[in-house]
This record gives sequence, structure tokens and C-alpha cells, in this order.
Amino acid sequence: MKAIIITIGDEILSGATVDTNAAYIAKGLISIGVDVTRRVSVGDNPPEMEREIRDGLSKFDIVITTGGLGPTDDDMTKDVICRVFDTELVEHEDTLKALERRYEQLNLTMSKAARGMAMQPKGATLIHNTLGTAPGILFDRDGRVFCSMAGVPSEMRSIVDQGLLPYLEKRGTDHVIIFKNISTFGIPESKLAERLEEAGFVPQNAKLAFLPSYAGVILRLRADGKSEAEVEEVIDINTKRILDVVGEYVFTTDSRSLLEAVTDLIKENHVTVSAAESCTGGLISKLLTDVSGSSGYFTQSIITYANEAKIDRLGVRPETIEKYGAVSEQTCREMVEGMLRTAGTDYAVASTGIAGPTGGTDDKPVGMVYLGVANRDRTDVRRFVFSGDRDVVRTRSAFTVLNMLRLRLLGK
Amino acid sequence: MKAIIITIGDEILSGATVDTNAAYIAKGLISIGVDVTRRVSVGDNPPEMEREIRDGLSKFDIVITTGGLGPTDDDMTKDVICRVFDTELVEHEDTLKALERRYEQLNLTMSKAARGMAMQPKGATLIHNTLGTAPGILFDRDGRVFCSMAGVPSEMRSIVDQGLLPYLEKRGTDHVIIFKNISTFGIPESKLAERLEEAGFVPQNAKLAFLPSYAGVILRLRADGKSEAEVEEVIDINTKRILDVVGEYVFTTDSRSLLEAVTDLIKENHVTVSAAESCTGGLISKLLTDVSGSSGYFTQSIITYANEAKIDRLGVRPETIEKYGAVSEQTCREMVEGMLRTAGTDYAVASTGIAGPTGGTDDKPVGMVYLGVANRDRTDVRRFVFSGDRDVVRTRSAFTVLNMLRLRLLGK
Repeated sequence: MKAIIITIGDEILSGATVDTNAAYIAKGLISIGVDVTRRVSVGDNPPEMEREIRDGLSKFDIVITTGGLGPTDDDMTKDVICRVFDTELVEHEDTLKALERRYEQLNLTMSKAARGMAMQPKGATLIHNTLGTAPGILFDRDGRVFCSMAGVPSEMRSIVDQGLLPYLEKRGTDHVIIFKNISTFGIPESKLAERLEEAGFVPQNAKLAFLPSYAGVILRLRADGKSEAEVEEVIDINTKRILDVVGEYVFTTDSRSLLEAVTDLIKENHVTVSAAESCTGGLISKLLTDVSGSSGYFTQSIITYANEAKIDRLGVRPETIEKYGAVSEQTCREMVEGMLRTAGTDYAVASTGIAGPTGGTDDKPVGMVYLGVANRDRTDVRRFVFSGDRDVVRTRSAFTVLNMLRLRLLGK
Repeated sequence: MKAIIITIGDEILSGATVDTNAAYIAKGLISIGVDVTRRVSVGDNPPEMEREIRDGLSKFDIVITTGGLGPTDDDMTKDVICRVFDTELVEHEDTLKALERRYEQLNLTMSKAARGMAMQPKGATLIHNTLGTAPGILFDRDGRVFCSMAGVPSEMRSIVDQGLLPYLEKRGTDHVIIFKNISTFGIPESKLAERLEEAGFVPQNAKLAFLPSYAGVILRLRADGKSEAEVEEVIDINTKRILDVVGEYVFTTDSRSLLEAVTDLIKENHVTVSAAESCTGGLISKLLTDVSGSSGYFTQSIITYANEAKIDRLGVRPETIEKYGAVSEQTCREMVEGMLRTAGTDYAVASTGIAGPTGGTDDKPVGMVYLGVANRDRTDVRRFVFSGDRDVVRTRSAFTVLNMLRLRLLGK
């Protein structure tokens, strides 16, 4: 089963919007064994949209489109769908009712444009949109599945997870594809490749891809075949070889993110955590609270941008800042120990650095960051120089200190 | 001048990586008058890559590819380029020197795989990569421009801004495209469309798109023509009509983000700001410090997830939490006033709510959030019920409280 994903919208083509929908849809399709072999984005241009959908239906088993189902004038996807499937728009009662309920809840009167959202292509299977009013539109004809979804990410996700994927799974597939992520942190892509090369590692009946990000480099194995057992064996053999060579950098082999690996470990150890942040400006705390249930381990953080705040809130000594500077091993140490003391948590983490683009000096260049982890027994502070722009330096700092915490919790 | 952007990589097709590069490249091309009419993603599959590049060169003036120039085995883009342009790889001295310098700085020995990065297609114009070692590869043949860039976002950005765009601009273009963003906050897309429809607004010689995001809905006008003066007049006429109808929700017409509009206003007013965050968990502070130079107005924040932290750090009265709950108008008021008092800033903002997915009750459903803004004269607290998942609720909360601060600074 091969699929194409078509994202529709001038805003995607022009770069005004980053296309996150296609990635989500692709992940979902792959998880049920569908091979996504092509992605295309076209503008709000009906002839172009029609050509792309027709071309997709002639070459792929599954054609998914997203975007162009909202209430405004730049939405012409439904007309195109009607032309492709030789049908017409009719008012759909359930959709109209859902719209009316929605507008009532919001205390708004329904506009003509909004009412138009109840018009749906005759003969289509409509997939309920639990988070919005525009349902997914599905046609299953001549062995090919077409599905069109709204572009609002949360609505698209709900249609994919609760409608599209179950539909496709029931329809059955004869091919097994398995992906396995071996996730590393603290070693660059080229060095990983070199280590594997030196050890003579070559993927056996599988493909290996390197997926670098600021939250580490993922080594991703992919294998496919007729049976699950066969493919899993291939994956296991390759995984074992990779772990033999670069296992020390691996934080998980079960597709969790670095953040999930850290927060799971915090929960398993039943410890509490707080953060004293300077250059990361709240990002460490934001990450630690991305997870539902984080109130079980995260109680508070203090973001001390100004020197006075470091002194007043965390008990950093003025002499320390005067002598070594706010960006120094010593200040970072007093910050993290002060946080631990004042918050009374089991662990504390801290950051102080120069995120840039301004503020760097010869001695302390942009990207220089001190990161600390402390518990009652021990304080570790490490110095890093990260390359990249402000956002990259902050992101790398936050993930690196979370990884330091992870290693501490593992007793390393 | 029409362009196609081709992003290469199994990781993009599979959804493991969200394709942010294409959006950045598209924005850059449009800014110099190039029309981006198509985007395609293909996997690490040489025949597919070759077909797509050849197809692009037969239909478009400019073909840009990104991805597939890294040091690892899944990178075969350069071989494909050689086939398309009927040339071969030769060792490029400047690239080799840059690689050697880089490895020396990092105190690493250069692997064979890394050395392969110095091999470049003969006859290509190489664009220096200031943030990495893989240069951009450019061919300008038969009136068509082809450019291939690394997939690492910061490196791609540097090649686009410092190499590709200047090259294309020098080459000249006869067409003027102007985009104008009219950015709104606090009104949904459908309501904006309804207001414009009721006022009889129809774009004159321009296209209007609605770009909704959690940081507001952007109304984006686009017009094109032969001269800048002509196109600007069209844009001005349409902008004026739109402002007449929905101006009260517009925070900028100069393409700044809501965050930039708020931080610019903070700077212009020479005021300082702090935040007391509960459900947003650090996100408000992270946003306020995304901007370089934020240390001029942002001094500190306190993230109080636990009730004890709200009491100890912000002086919220235990009776208030007991009587009204941590998620209440009263607690939010005491949080924001406590923050103002303890931080001594000119303004403080605060959040307390239920980000979900757990923790909701009939009285206080998931998505219910109280947001506050205070200065010495006045405290405003407002209640919202946001729909969407945890991430969406937190993001909407953060942007909404920043907009409340913006309106306060404007005296509204």
C-alpha cells in the first residue's frame, strides 16, 4: 500500500505556515504499515489541486489531502473533490447540527460562510471531527482510498487517529513495515557514523537513517517483509549490533523522546525537581511541564535573568558574580544549590550562559553555557559551547541539562 | 520566475522530522519576487530524487533541494546531481580545508565519511556554508537555476540568506509580488470572514488568505504586477478597507508576530515585566526571553506549580486557595499582585488553569484558565475556556496574556 500526502494552501507554499500536518499523517500511516512515498504541497489553486489529486489517484493506493476545508473564501477543496468524484455538494444534517451546537456553545450566530461548512460531497463517507466542525471526507473507490481533512492541526489529528487509521486498518494490508528508533544524545551524527563504520557495521536486510535534532541523533532502522516475526528478527539483529558499538550514548530504543525518557525516570524514582534558569528563560520548566501529571514531580522554578534576582531569590553571593561573572562555573553552582535549598526538591537543575546574538566576548563567546545538576549529595556543573542561533543555543542547553539529570538519576 | 522546492529524506516522508526548511526557503524566494508554486518531498531514493529534479528543471525556472548532503550513508544527493548535470565528483580544496579546520576545532579526527564531504560536483558554483561544512551546490544552465543545500536548518538558512538569495537577486527578475499581513488576535477566522462579508468587502485585484494560528489570525493580502508602485497601491487600498472593518482586532500590519508587537511595546514604554506562571509552566517567560536584549525589560519569573509555592513565593493566602481553589479568579489576582510586589517590576502577568488532559471537573473543565495583568494602579483578571490539547491550551494561554499586556500598555 503506497500513499501520497497532499497539503493544500498558499500559506504553506509561501512559508507563512510550517507544514506539520504531513509529518503527523505520515507517522500514522506508517504505523499501520502504509508506505508514504511522496508528499506534495500546492497552493489554493483549484486546477492545480485537481491535477494533483487525479495524478495521485492514478499512481497511489491512498491519497490524503489536508487544508482547504475551513469556513473562508480561500477554501475550494470541496468543489474540487466533487469534480474528481463526479458528485455534488448536499447539505449534511449531522454536520449542520454539530455546527449549530458549536455556535450555540460559543454564543455566536452562525454566518452564511459557516453554514456552508455543512455542505458535503454526496456519496462520501464522512469522518466525525471531535475537535471541530469540518468532518473528514472519504471516498473508497476502485480499490483506492481518498481522504480529505481540515488543516487545523488538532482537528486533523483527531480525524487521523479516530477515523482514518481505524478505517484503513479494517480494510487490511498484506505488508509489514517496522521502524525502530535507537535514540542517542551527546554525540554528533558524523561521529556516530564513524564509530559504526570503524566497527564494520553494515545494516543487514534493513535501511539505516540518521535523524539529527537538538534533542539528539536518532538512528532509525527500517525493515519490511511478509510477516511480523521475520521483520522483527531483522530489526533485533541490527539493533543489537548498533547497541554493542554506540550503546553508551543511547537513551532509549522504544521511540520515546529524550524528554519522555527523563520524565519517566523522574517518575520511576519518585523524586521532585526544580529549575533555576537564566539563559534558558523558562524553557527547561516548560519542557518539564509539557507532560500531563508533571505536578507530581515539578513544584516550582525560578527564572533569574537579572543579577539581583540571582542574589535575592537563589542566594548567589554578590562577590561570586563580581569576581567570576554571571556566566561562570561558580555562579551556576550557587544557583543550582540555592534552588535546591529554597525549593526543597530532591534535585535541581540550572542554566546560565550567553544565548546571543549579542553579549558575547572573547573570553565568553556566544553559545557558552554552564549547566548544573544538584541533589543533597553532589553538585555537577559542566561548561559547553553550543553553535547555532539564540533559539538553538537555548534549546540545546535545555536538552543537555535534562540529559545530565537523566544520567545522574541512572547513577552515571 | 517560478520555483519548486524539493525536500529529500526518508525522515521527512515518514514524519519523523517536520519539514521546516521548505517554509524558510519559500519565504526567502517570495521576498525577492519568486513565485513558489510547488513543493515536493521524496525519500532517500536516488531514482525518485533524479526523476523529481529532472521534472522540476523541465517545468520551473528555479529548482531548490534541501537534505541529503550530510556525512552519513543515507546521503546520495550528490551522485544524483552528477547524473542530472552530466558531471563527476572531484575533491574541492576549500571545502576540504574547512572540514579540516572544523575537525581540529572540535578536537576530532576526520573519518573517511567526513572526508567524502569535500567531494563536490565538477562545474558547480559552491556556496559557502558559514555554519557547517557542506557547501550549497549551484548550477545555472539554460536559464534555469538549480541549488542543493544541506538539511540542517541553521546551515540551510545561512546558505539561503548569504548565498542563494543574493545570487538570484543579482540575476534579476521582472515581476513584483507583494504580500501584506494584517495580523489580528482575539477573533476567530469564521467571525473575521463574516464581518468582512457583512461589510461587503471583496479583495480588489488581490487575493486574501486567512492564516489562523494560536498567535492569532493573519489576513494576508497578495498582489502582483509589473511595477512596485502599482502593486503597492493595490495593497494599500485593500488594507485600508480591511482596517475599517476589523481594525479593533489588528495588532500589526507590518508582519511582526504578536510576540514582537508586545516586546516592542514593552521596550518603547521602558517598562519591566515579570511573570507568575502556573499552568503555562514557563512558556510565558520563555516567549518573553525569545528576543535578544530581553534582559533590558525582563528580570525574573516564578513558576509556582504546587500550592505551597504559590503561598511561599507569591504570598497567595492559603484561605484563598482553600475557598476558591488554585484555579480561580481570586488566586490569579493574588498571584499577579504578589509577583508585582516581590519582583518590583512595572508590570506582572500571571496564569493559573487546567491544561489537561487530566484534572478537569464539571465546574472547572480542562481548558479553563485565569489570566491576569497588573501594574501598581490596576489588576485585571479574565477567565477563558480554551479548546484543544494540553499544548494548545498552554500556548493559547501564553499568547492571550501577552495580548492582555499589550492592550494594557496601549491604555485599552
